[in-house]
This record gives sequence, C-alpha cells and structure tokens, in this order.
Amino acid sequence: MTSLDLQQDPVDLTAALVDIFSVSGEEAVIADAVRAALEKQAPHLEVVRNGDAVLARTNLGRASRVVLAGHLDTVPVNDNLPSRREGEGDAEILHGLGTVDMKGGDAVFLHLAATLPEPKHDITFVFYDNEEVEATRNGLGRIERELPDWLAGDLAIVGEPSNAVIEAGCQGTMRVELRCAGARAHTARAWMGENAIHKLGEPLRRLTAYEPRIVDIDGLTYREGLQATKITGGVAGNVVPDEAVLTVNHRFAPDRTPVQAEQHLREVFDGYELSVVDLSPGALPGLGAPAAAELLAAAGGRASAKLGWTDVARFAALGMPAVNFGPGDPTLAHTRQEQVRTAEIRRVAEVLRDFLA
Amino acid sequence: MTSLDLQQDPVDLTAALVDIFSVSGEEAVIADAVRAALEKQAPHLEVVRNGDAVLARTNLGRASRVVLAGHLDTVPVNDNLPSRREGEGDAEILHGLGTVDMKGGDAVFLHLAATLPEPKHDITFVFYDNEEVEATRNGLGRIERELPDWLAGDLAIVGEPSNAVIEAGCQGTMRVELRCAGARAHTARAWMGENAIHKLGEPLRRLTAYEPRIVDIDGLTYREGLQATKITGGVAGNVVPDEAVLTVNHRFAPDRTPVQAEQHLREVFDGYELSVVDLSPGALPGLGAPAAAELLAAAGGRASAKLGWTDVARFAALGMPAVNFGPGDPTLAHTRQEQVRTAEIRRVAEVLRDFLA
Repeated sequence: MTSLDLQQDPVDLTAALVDIFSVSGEEAVIADAVRAALEKQAPHLEVVRNGDAVLARTNLGRASRVVLAGHLDTVPVNDNLPSRREGEGDAEILHGLGTVDMKGGDAVFLHLAATLPEPKHDITFVFYDNEEVEATRNGLGRIERELPDWLAGDLAIVGEPSNAVIEAGCQGTMRVELRCAGARAHTARAWMGENAIHKLGEPLRRLTAYEPRIVDIDGLTYREGLQATKITGGVAGNVVPDEAVLTVNHRFAPDRTPVQAEQHLREVFDGYELSVVDLSPGALPGLGAPAAAELLAAAGGRASAKLGWTDVARFAALGMPAVNFGPGDPTLAHTRQEQVRTAEIRRVAEVLRDFLA
Repeated sequence: MTSLDLQQDPVDLTAALVDIFSVSGEEAVIADAVRAALEKQAPHLEVVRNGDAVLARTNLGRASRVVLAGHLDTVPVNDNLPSRREGEGDAEILHGLGTVDMKGGDAVFLHLAATLPEPKHDITFVFYDNEEVEATRNGLGRIERELPDWLAGDLAIVGEPSNAVIEAGCQGTMRVELRCAGARAHTARAWMGENAIHKLGEPLRRLTAYEPRIVDIDGLTYREGLQATKITGGVAGNVVPDEAVLTVNHRFAPDRTPVQAEQHLREVFDGYELSVVDLSPGALPGLGAPAAAELLAAAGGRASAKLGWTDVARFAALGMPAVNFGPGDPTLAHTRQEQVRTAEIRRVAEVLRDFLA
C-alpha cells in the first residue's frame, strides 16, 4: 500500500497525493492510503470508511464543530502526471493533475488532522469520492444519506481552489430550454410553412440586451450571468424547420431562491415556452456566524464571492455557513497545464492552523 | 419476368408500374420489364440499357427531337404498396408509392412509345435510375457522361408531377453556412468570454425581415425564398460557446446566375462569414423555342413557374428548353398518402399525343 507521511510539509504531501492516480470511480487506492495514514498517524481521531470516502473526527466536546471537506478524485489524466516542481521560494510551482483541484486542499486538511490533536473547535474531516462526475454519484450525497451526523457542524470549509482567499456562499445555477414551434414546408414553397429557427432571433436579441445584476451581500459582490449554451434546430436541407430549441444557463446570486430565479427568467422570456432542465440553489455567504467570523479574521478579514457552484451549497442546504477555501487558481482546474503556487498551499495551512489551534 | 402491356390504358399501366418495387438502388426488376416491353411492343425504336436506365428513340430524320425523361425509382416504401383505386370517373383516385412521383409520367411515356410509331418530332425516351438519392448517383448524370448523344434534342419534357400543368424552367438553390466565432469561458464568469450563439440574433433578424423577390419571366411568376434550415452551437452546459453556425437555403429565380445569387446573399449577410456548401443553378423557362411553343399550345396555352429544383435544370444546362409536365400534386410526393387523380394521367397523355402525333 502507498504510505503517506502526514507530518511532512503540506507541499510535499500535495505532491505525494497528486502522484496517486485517482480519477473519479477509481479512488480505492487513495482512500486506502488516507485511511491507513489517519489510523496510524492521528490516533486521536475516530475514523470510518464509507465507500471510497474516508471520514475522521475529534470528539473533544468543544462548543462548536468545523467540517473540513475535500474530494479525492480528479478529472481524467491529460498528459499531466506525475507531478513536477519548478522554481524556488515564493515563485515555486507544483505542476500536475489535481494540484489545483484539489489535492492541495486535501493535503492541508490531512496535515492538520495529524498535527492538531487538540483543536479549539471539534473537527470533522471528510475526504470523499466522485465529485467530478454526475451529481448522483457524488460521495458527499451518499454520506448525507448514510451517515448524516458526520456532516453536522457550525461551519463547513470546502477546500476547492479559491486562490487561497475565502470565497463565501455560491451562486445558484439553472438551465432552461426555450422552444419555438413552426410548421414544416418545402423551402421552395416556404410561405406554406413557418420557420421555427427564425423565431429564435428575438430571444437571442433579449439575451444580447440583457444586463446581469451585480449583487452585494455581506460586503461580497456576486455577478450574475445569462448565457445561451446550446442552440439546435433543423429537419433537412430543403425543409422549413418546425422546431428550434435554445438552452440558456442562468447563474444567480444567492439572494434569490430558485423559484424567484425561475420567475425572473419567465419575465425575461415572456411570450416563450420555457422548461427548467437543471436547477441548483445558491448558498448565502453566512459570514456573520461566529465560527465563520473567526475564520475570516484568521484570513486577514478578506473574502470574496464564489461565482461557480460547489459542494458548499450542499452544506448551506443543511443550514450551515459554508465557505470555499483552498490553494490554486480555479480557472486552471481541468486543464492540462494544471499547476499551483506552493506558497498558496502554505498560506491556507497557516490560516487554518491559526483558526483551529 | 414481370410483363408490362404498353397498349393498355395509361392509368392501368401506372398501377402496374407502381406495383413493381423499385426503391432507389433496386431498379433492376423494373428496368428489365421496361426494356423487354419496349423491345417487344415498340419494335420501331432503338433501345439500349445503361446501368438500370433504359433508353429508346425514333430515328425518323424529323426536323426536331423531343426528349421525354422520367425516373423509375421511388423513395422507400411507407406502408403504401401495392396500389389501390378508389372512386370512379373524374373522381377516381389511384393510391400508392410512386403514383405521383413519378410512375404516372413514366406510364404515359411508355404508352406513347408503343402507340406512336410515326411522331411529328423524333422522340428520345429516357427511363432512369437513382433520382431520389444523392446527385452523384443520379442515372441521368451517368447517361450524360456515358451516352451524351442520347440526351440531345430541341425540347426536354421531364414527367415529374406538376398537376398536369406545364411548369417551365426551375429556380436555383443554394445553401450557405454563416459562422459566428466567440471565446469560451465558464458561464459563472461569462464576462471573460464572448458568446457566439448570441451573435446569431442579428442574422436571424435579417432573415425575419427579408422580403423575397417575386420575379416575372416570360409571363411566369417565380417566388424566391430565404430560409434557415439548420442552427447549431454549444460546447457544454456550463461553457460560453465559441462557435455557432446557421445554415440558410436560398431559392432564386432563374434570372439570376449562381454568382449573382451568391453576391446577393453576401449583401444580405454583410459583415458575416459565409461559405457556400451546395449550389444548383436555375433554368430559364425557354418557352419561346418552337417545340416548346407547340407543346404550350397543345396544353391550352397555360404554364406556370417551377419552384422546386428538378432534373429539368440538367437539360437546361445542356442548352435545351426544358419543362416539367406530369400528373399528380408534387406536395403529395414522398408522403405515405401519395395518390393521384387518374384524370390527370389521362390529361397528360392526351396533351402529349396532341403535341407529338
């Protein structure tokens, strides 16, 4: 079995985790290694395995509990394994699949698990599987169903890349299909039909004219968005088409509920047939909660709004304040040239140690 | 071998031809039957076989020659074989695959071949294969390459359905792709990208506002058309798309050359990248030519413009006046409920006999 030294520098530990192949669905080896290391090197923790997830927690009777959650899986390999290091000191870079998304966050959490036997808050560590695939396979969802008490707490920190800045809450996302109908005819006698594709001109005009809201919540700025992501229509090269469909993705700030966001889209596309095909609520930042405020102070008081959707929203749905906080630039996630500044890994480790020690 | 009686009433002969299965690519049986019938029942004709086409002609040394052309193939069977008759007299209907497209025309031509040993004009009969499939397989194209003198003449009559009215010339058809480019980004950070689908709004607006020309040529009215036939774009549900493509079909009156029609589309879609993906020139009606004028007179002086594209354009490209003239409503072609008024079959037979006898 691969053995992991949790006492070592979190940057070295990140590299060791990166070098364990763990594409979604194939997390058994990394889960075995994490479990064995926690059982041996963090004997003060209660450890359980659930599928290819590993859970560990203190039971110190503290007044509050913090959940540190990170997924162990990666997207498929893209000629970017094993890891390699480049540069020195503050300019040092660690290259490789998972350096950003999100073995840097995992490494920090594992290092704290072994080196913080008496934290200020009780801590639950959640290392889970299948985050990079369809939501129905997500290990966190399975844990929520099978071991719900392991997700309870007063604050959740998800170690997804956030440039080592606290990103609070997250925006909601909704996908709708806008469907136009017409009547088929031969294009040589087009006046006998009604062109459904032509009718998409007006919805596209509204999209182009749309001005997304910029919303301030708890001092954080959320920029909404409304974007066509797919357009289809057409029967044959000589046929006036009778159906055309436009798919639109709306990212909405967490001050709106899914119902309100849907109502908004129905107003924007008034007169058109809309159907919601996908919907995930946003999460309010919740930085006013005591544990969240302590974390924010430890991070120097700086936070920004999370724009993408992450598993933070799952914790928010459980009623907990939840933030993203991890090393790495999220725009490099899922790219072949995935890489992280090692200083960010150390920065996240220091902030969390300050907060928890 | 199936035997055909060419002396019989053209309506009965149509039913007999309909009942010989002859989907494109499977015309051997019908071609065998047509060849055998012509050789036996029209001994005054020179007969040759080319692939699954059968050609026959008089060699009487007349001052002019008329080409009568009809394809033998049909689109696939759609629960509409064998033929069946309904009603009586002028209201009689013949149902079945090919009754309209175009075994009625074939039957009239075959009947004339056997019953007009001394026509006023020399006649070339062309019964050909693979009209209902891609142009590269078209039997008429093969004959043009292999036996070009068999297509020469002073007038071509293609027996495609035209409601038993002479349809002259045909419109051209052109397909263009209009491509918009953008820049990918995550939809949660849409301002970092540029949405290619949104850019199709303006071309669609121009299509909706477009007023097609109505063109008079030789007293015939051609209605042009400009129709989107396909629209595609999209990368993934959470990605701002960087490419979107609109396919547009333009039907243009035969007073415009393909170059002029393309120039027109470049003006309509000024500012956009266009590429021509398909182009067939139109055919001028040419009703002023002597043989065409005689035919027109035999038909009572009535003619209308052909809007769809047919093999008439192949003859026009060879420099011959060419018309469509056949029984049946072309809008019923390729439908399951294909059917023809038998009176139209008789009407076409009478007009052609008047013209040729």
